[in-house]
Amino acid sequence: MAPLGEGSDDPVLPDLPRGPLDAARARASFPWKELALFWDGPDMLRFKKSIFSALENDPLFAHPPGSLSLEKYRELNFLRCKRVFEYDFLRVEDLLGSPQRVLALIQCLGMYDWSLATKFFLHTLTFGSAIYSSGSERHFKYLPKIFNMEIFGCFALTEVSHGSNTKAMRTTAHYDPTTEELIIHSPDFEAAKFWVGNMGKTATHAVVFAQLYTPGGRCHGLHPFVVQIRDPKTLLPMPGVMVGDIGKKLGQNGLDNGFAMFHKVRIPRQDLLNRSGDLTPEGTYVTHVKDSRQHFSESLGSLSSGRVAIAGMSVVNLKLAVSIALRFSATRRQFGPTDQEEVPVLEYPMQQWRLLPYLAAAYALDHFSKSLFLDLVELQQGLLRKDRSARQAELGREIHALASAGKPLASWTAQRGIQECREACGGHGYLAMNRLGDLRDDNDPNCTYEGDNNVLLQQTSNYLLGLLVRRDQGGARIESPLKTVDFLEAYPNILGHRFEGSSPEDCLDSSVPLAAYEWLVCYLLRESYQKLNQEKQSGSSDFEARNNCQPKTSKRCGTQRSPIPTTSESRRAAQVTTGLV
Amino acid sequence: MAPLGEGSDDPVLPDLPRGPLDAARARASFPWKELALFWDGPDMLRFKKSIFSALENDPLFAHPPGSLSLEKYRELNFLRCKRVFEYDFLRVEDLLGSPQRVLALIQCLGMYDWSLATKFFLHTLTFGSAIYSSGSERHFKYLPKIFNMEIFGCFALTEVSHGSNTKAMRTTAHYDPTTEELIIHSPDFEAAKFWVGNMGKTATHAVVFAQLYTPGGRCHGLHPFVVQIRDPKTLLPMPGVMVGDIGKKLGQNGLDNGFAMFHKVRIPRQDLLNRSGDLTPEGTYVTHVKDSRQHFSESLGSLSSGRVAIAGMSVVNLKLAVSIALRFSATRRQFGPTDQEEVPVLEYPMQQWRLLPYLAAAYALDHFSKSLFLDLVELQQGLLRKDRSARQAELGREIHALASAGKPLASWTAQRGIQECREACGGHGYLAMNRLGDLRDDNDPNCTYEGDNNVLLQQTSNYLLGLLVRRDQGGARIESPLKTVDFLEAYPNILGHRFEGSSPEDCLDSSVPLAAYEWLVCYLLRESYQKLNQEKQSGSSDFEARNNCQPKTSKRCGTQRSPIPTTSESRRAAQVTTGLV
Repeated sequence: MAPLGEGSDDPVLPDLPRGPLDAARARASFPWKELALFWDGPDMLRFKKSIFSALENDPLFAHPPGSLSLEKYRELNFLRCKRVFEYDFLRVEDLLGSPQRVLALIQCLGMYDWSLATKFFLHTLTFGSAIYSSGSERHFKYLPKIFNMEIFGCFALTEVSHGSNTKAMRTTAHYDPTTEELIIHSPDFEAAKFWVGNMGKTATHAVVFAQLYTPGGRCHGLHPFVVQIRDPKTLLPMPGVMVGDIGKKLGQNGLDNGFAMFHKVRIPRQDLLNRSGDLTPEGTYVTHVKDSRQHFSESLGSLSSGRVAIAGMSVVNLKLAVSIALRFSATRRQFGPTDQEEVPVLEYPMQQWRLLPYLAAAYALDHFSKSLFLDLVELQQGLLRKDRSARQAELGREIHALASAGKPLASWTAQRGIQECREACGGHGYLAMNRLGDLRDDNDPNCTYEGDNNVLLQQTSNYLLGLLVRRDQGGARIESPLKTVDFLEAYPNILGHRFEGSSPEDCLDSSVPLAAYEWLVCYLLRESYQKLNQEKQSGSSDFEARNNCQPKTSKRCGTQRSPIPTTSESRRAAQVTTGLV
Repeated sequence: MAPLGEGSDDPVLPDLPRGPLDAARARASFPWKELALFWDGPDMLRFKKSIFSALENDPLFAHPPGSLSLEKYRELNFLRCKRVFEYDFLRVEDLLGSPQRVLALIQCLGMYDWSLATKFFLHTLTFGSAIYSSGSERHFKYLPKIFNMEIFGCFALTEVSHGSNTKAMRTTAHYDPTTEELIIHSPDFEAAKFWVGNMGKTATHAVVFAQLYTPGGRCHGLHPFVVQIRDPKTLLPMPGVMVGDIGKKLGQNGLDNGFAMFHKVRIPRQDLLNRSGDLTPEGTYVTHVKDSRQHFSESLGSLSSGRVAIAGMSVVNLKLAVSIALRFSATRRQFGPTDQEEVPVLEYPMQQWRLLPYLAAAYALDHFSKSLFLDLVELQQGLLRKDRSARQAELGREIHALASAGKPLASWTAQRGIQECREACGGHGYLAMNRLGDLRDDNDPNCTYEGDNNVLLQQTSNYLLGLLVRRDQGGARIESPLKTVDFLEAYPNILGHRFEGSSPEDCLDSSVPLAAYEWLVCYLLRESYQKLNQEKQSGSSDFEARNNCQPKTSKRCGTQRSPIPTTSESRRAAQVTTGLV
């Protein structure tokens, strides 16, 4: 197998440069080029190489010496984003036809700098696909302008006082039939849009979520609207729009997160993104959505895609951190059996024990996030062909549950892995130029955006509990399109299993920890289910009952969990099934 | 009890300002002023208040809007450090007579900004006490100059290629009897002094550690020397000294960490800090230290003091983070039983379960670090009066073991606590102005400096194993001045104990987890002891034997630990006793 490495002037997988890592590399028990080829495939390797080569050879992407001011960094990041469009790595048709290339581009840009990757995809994907998938033909005029950067976009949902609770958003959109306009308004400071990526300095247009009111004062709930916020020539705010940058963050400081308040800003009726509901010129609200359940079901796909993407982004960070730490450890020498001969720190069992599990996790999570991404692509193809089958709906729910747990798993593993790598490199890990700090800071929001990890886990537990309820109440078999929950069908049996290993060797087979996890999920599910029923029978409202079953000693709840803090990993595992809001 | 709060125009504990926290505060079940008084005592409260008032009222300490460049921040931090001396919070005599005031000053400065606190104490305490305790009368001329900032100091031990392994340091000091001078020299880049706080921009003098060579080429090991590195008027480097700033770090960027290379820099013979060894004018090495064991024993006190200080610094960070997160959580409202009435997120069991254990840890670790500090003061008083008793030596070893485990415990707990606080504040926790990022970044090096946490834990395990060996070989009772290890005397009995709790209530008594920890320590000690003996009997050298017993599955070692990664906390606990290098 030599299709990529040899016999070419510009091989996709050139030999590694000679240097202090040679000794460690010479001890590899497998050929690394074959692994790379097996893992990514030749097409993807070539695509990635073309991206990296372009960035490497363009002075705009050189890392300037010293540290940039916030202003300069944001300006440079915008110029780089513009250049990425000029390179034309993706064509419009790739967005639907080659989703894997889209993912690869984001990850390559992220390897270079997450501020660039997020700036690019917030405009192209988040803003662009909100218009494409929430709007209709009358909005498609925006799409070419997105791709030639005539306009630059952002997605404005979060407000100062509300993030997770989207229903409580307070920006309003009142319809005025006399002019056929919608009046976008922020009632007060707490309703200001906040955290919006690209809004701080550069966005000219925003998809703004606001409560839609028709004449007579009836509220139809949160809807998306296209609102121009800046003049594309001068970048000065449009009349009635107060917009600015929210300032320094812990990381991703090349990205200009912003805020905006709207003072009775008028937009044409047509700029309501009308996929789920529309207005007649007279101001009558019309919708094909029968109930909130259908609406929810249709929106699961877009909720999942952000989370699946974040799982992949987290893996990239873990890969980078582990590579840095392992290479350092293979060359850093400290102590040894004699004064003459110091040992590379990677040879110490302690260092291996700190780093190698994260190397393994990087491979496992990379595979997981890629396969979940392919499942998501299948789901979205179903949505596009308006598949309303039961399987499609069930696939949406399963992927939503997997993404809601997979994103916390990947982002937390990366967060802890990067920290371990930082510490395992000692003082040198604390030097900014060695990048572990940037990786940690840029990865950190993966734990928060698109749903706080702890809150998200509760969505997965809701899904699992729902399966149990359906099984108990209607006798339905537990089976899902991707088969990830089919083991729950054996739920009472599994609870009867006992661990029977007696030596470390007994645990080396992966079926052993797998069986232990299955048991744990069943156990925690049963506990949660019983607690929730108990709460409800004692007269608690749904809100109270779910609250009181969150993982915490609560007298009212009569919990069986110990008040002694358990270790964080088992707490996290417990949350998946016992957290219920 | 009203000595501090009422009846004064400027009370030490004024009432808290009215605001959105009132509702939560009104529900406290205890009077907070009494707790503060009980916890700190009136003198300490007054001292802290005087420091905070001075900083609050001085424009030099105002936080400038926006972010400072690295250069500006370092400049401003130096000016602030100078101003702290002008305020005269401490007198020279306080350094010996009122150690608690010294600690309180560091912690108050750290609450304001760790870059300032570290800059101040690296000069005053680390540099100053290295001269005071490693030198003799001939060096006391430097002390007044330290306190009036005529000179500014740093402590240069670490080199680019060596941190933990101090024996492998390669800077040299050759004695030239013809001029009665020592020649300080860095053989190459890897021997450059590196990471030295204050060296980057501002230090005029350094305590430099170098291998001392007498004529004829005999090496007497690492010794400290006072070396002038810059002109105090111009801050230009002295001839032969190449000195500079190592650049941006993950945190503490107001502190100018630096590097230095010496090219045959000549200093007078008298600038050898001669407490452990001296040179005659002719170049004969003289020492009162009989053997390396005595030398080691005498240096334990100074090793411990850095670690005890870091435990206290970590607690300060945890306190700040928990306060920020709890106040935010008491006012941030999200979701609720009806649309009208949202609930403060602190009311959710999940939020309490995330944050309250860290509030408890802040109190527990604050008490622990203060009491350990008082024990350290006792140890140092013994050193000053040249106490050579067995108790004094044993106290040194016990405090060294406690500090070597206490510093990892406090710094890791703070690191994780700050991260949990960051995440528990959602997006707002990721905004730089809310300070959780700075706290995390400034706390992070506490896991690394004065000994990497993982390496330090092995020092505690060495101490514990040593007790066991002495008991088994000589039948000596296990007892220590502070009684922290006396429970090990019952070691075989403890291993026979079984957990007998059957309900959560059974675990509420603190004796239950305490007994569990005692059992765990005994169990891991026995395992480690057996493994180590087995290794030695099979012919491994000391170095190999200890290495192979580090926590990791190793075929050679025949370990009984499972290769499945255990949770990180239990891994850490295991390290205390099983890590052995």
